[in-house]
Amino acid sequence: MLDWEHIFATRSSRMKASEIRELLKLLEQPDIISFAGGIPDPALFPAEEFQKAYSDIFAGPQVNAALQYSVSEGYKPLRDWIVQDVAKIGIDCQPENVFITSGSQQALDYLGKLFLSPKDTALVTWPTYLGALSAFNAYEPTYDQLSLNGNRTPEAYREAAAKSGGAVKFAYLSADFSNPTGETIGLEGREKLLDLADEMDIAILEDAAYQHLRFDGQPIPPIMALDIERKGGIENTRTIYSGSFSKTLAPGLRVGFVIASMPVIRKLVLMKQAADLHSSTINQIAIEQVAARGFDAQVAKIKAAYSERRDFMLKALEKYMPKGTSWTKPEGGMFVWVTLPEGMDGAELLAKSIATEKVAFVPGRAFYADGSNANTLRMSYSCANGEMIEEGIKRLGRLIASASVEEKEALPII
Amino acid sequence: MLDWEHIFATRSSRMKASEIRELLKLLEQPDIISFAGGIPDPALFPAEEFQKAYSDIFAGPQVNAALQYSVSEGYKPLRDWIVQDVAKIGIDCQPENVFITSGSQQALDYLGKLFLSPKDTALVTWPTYLGALSAFNAYEPTYDQLSLNGNRTPEAYREAAAKSGGAVKFAYLSADFSNPTGETIGLEGREKLLDLADEMDIAILEDAAYQHLRFDGQPIPPIMALDIERKGGIENTRTIYSGSFSKTLAPGLRVGFVIASMPVIRKLVLMKQAADLHSSTINQIAIEQVAARGFDAQVAKIKAAYSERRDFMLKALEKYMPKGTSWTKPEGGMFVWVTLPEGMDGAELLAKSIATEKVAFVPGRAFYADGSNANTLRMSYSCANGEMIEEGIKRLGRLIASASVEEKEALPII
Repeated sequence: MLDWEHIFATRSSRMKASEIRELLKLLEQPDIISFAGGIPDPALFPAEEFQKAYSDIFAGPQVNAALQYSVSEGYKPLRDWIVQDVAKIGIDCQPENVFITSGSQQALDYLGKLFLSPKDTALVTWPTYLGALSAFNAYEPTYDQLSLNGNRTPEAYREAAAKSGGAVKFAYLSADFSNPTGETIGLEGREKLLDLADEMDIAILEDAAYQHLRFDGQPIPPIMALDIERKGGIENTRTIYSGSFSKTLAPGLRVGFVIASMPVIRKLVLMKQAADLHSSTINQIAIEQVAARGFDAQVAKIKAAYSERRDFMLKALEKYMPKGTSWTKPEGGMFVWVTLPEGMDGAELLAKSIATEKVAFVPGRAFYADGSNANTLRMSYSCANGEMIEEGIKRLGRLIASASVEEKEALPII
Repeated sequence: MLDWEHIFATRSSRMKASEIRELLKLLEQPDIISFAGGIPDPALFPAEEFQKAYSDIFAGPQVNAALQYSVSEGYKPLRDWIVQDVAKIGIDCQPENVFITSGSQQALDYLGKLFLSPKDTALVTWPTYLGALSAFNAYEPTYDQLSLNGNRTPEAYREAAAKSGGAVKFAYLSADFSNPTGETIGLEGREKLLDLADEMDIAILEDAAYQHLRFDGQPIPPIMALDIERKGGIENTRTIYSGSFSKTLAPGLRVGFVIASMPVIRKLVLMKQAADLHSSTINQIAIEQVAARGFDAQVAKIKAAYSERRDFMLKALEKYMPKGTSWTKPEGGMFVWVTLPEGMDGAELLAKSIATEKVAFVPGRAFYADGSNANTLRMSYSCANGEMIEEGIKRLGRLIASASVEEKEALPII
């Protein structure tokens, strides 16, 4: 066998297997209660609406266009639909500001590619979406912890970046019901981030993959909307907003989007021409048809189901988790973030949990760019029913309680 | 407006608008006779077969899986189908050696990403597929001219690469009916390339996008097949073969593939997890169904149509081109490559041609990594009928003849 390592680019050493993807394989075992996936519940897919959309495409005049190459920026009626949808949350833009991607994961890859030279710094929250770290890793950046309480100065970030051999290029975050914590950044935090980005002259990457899934509480304007308000129009903004149809309609079609000022969109279009030409034409048309016919009703259906599951999970955590364990109370999305007693390790707990209790979740360490905070777990309720949640959290609580005791017993007596 | 340039990564300066993509817009003008596109003829798409495939997916037990996330390596039955299809041309491999991409353009992007650190050298033919140069450019390589007649030594390549500040990582080429020339590399050239790659310990990227479209002449084994034969099995090969369903079934679904040894496939899978998770699930299933039901008949239909159009074009060129103009005689694919009299410029000719004769083609310079050989044109016959070809080539011949005269007249008299 050849020794490929010395032929591969240096960046390839940072391409490693994702814990989450490996864990997805566990879902295939029917006796496991899984809170690991973080995938949408397929029972909620608007399958009939998609069936009608594909059927209409083949019966109509668009069939040849649907099967043919198309423009890199994306299907114009879909971009028009997105423009009117985001106008409802204060994002005033034109179709020229919208760029269609193959899921919002592709937006993260492209934005890493657009901004990061090796050794540049990306500011990310601690923890952050694992897939963002994976996407950015290919461009060999350094990570620094994005603080939204104003306790780090622009100079501090700049000095750290210079020490790593590059410059700070952007701050990446998910402001609403983030993966993995389920938490939302308040208005003050968003304004502080805009202040920081303006002072530092960096971009803000706002990952809005879960933005539509608010169950309760007051909606907060997207950072993009606040930026547009500040600057008097999208062409003066530094925020780049990415969205997805994966959590609202269906992920299997791979359709997401980016909204930004035109200099950014123009670069992304060129990048896509070179990288995969365009996203699937037929799928973009199908997404547009399903969205135009009943997006809001579909989102309402999903929110009703997920909010009930979130309630089940929060109640079960309250009931079964031992003292010393805490968790987030998300107002939307798919995730609850659990913090275990200090000193416990989520990965070790998972190994035990799979072996003895048959419950799966994602250990939290992978979501920290520095691999810290091993005593955390990501729990998804999106694909679980009330009974599974009750039983799974009960087993997990039992395991955590016994693991805490074991660890205490193992302490050296001095 | 912000000054984005200093925030963008250095690689972004190499992302430029593609002449071909800009030219595609000309196709929308109905009075232009276009040989520019290089896209498949939509009248030949197996639309009914795709209609049945999508309809079956929604009527069957696969519907939820088709709309859901799926594995990064690709849909297993499609990989199985590819294994049996390529076995017919001497590529003996397992499904684990097959990786599904979003069109073969994505394969080029990923392979650039996998192999090229900035300043590394990619060997490419002169001319080469423009989209390969665009894909590789993002990784900031240097290009050197791949010679298949053995007149450059490994040392010469290595010295040139070292001078540019990197190492030679791969040789990229399309061996059958290449875009843009339509030419095929003979068996001797393929063997020489394998010798060179073995001596230099580099990868070979074999772009087989047009491989199925042979109209006449003897098939030549793919470089991948020769490599497997030499090394006794795919795991010892250094060739990476990329294929596409865009030219045989339909490009709008964005489904292509890579075949390689497992260390390469494993890296590509990790890369895809990070870059866009996976190619569209529903489209992969649809492609597999259409391919399994009648791939060979579909390919036969396309070949019959395109070979007739190639014949029309070669006859028209013979009839109308002025002396001093030459062209390739492709045995398959979609393109004829025209060399104009020395000193003429394809881009200037296009400007005149659009203005006065209403005939479009692609100027050849963009296909040369060094921007040389301006006196060349790429002509595609895939979407033209006999009448259009006769009329278009007639007008073009007239224009070239008059342009040659003009240029002669413009020579200073000394």
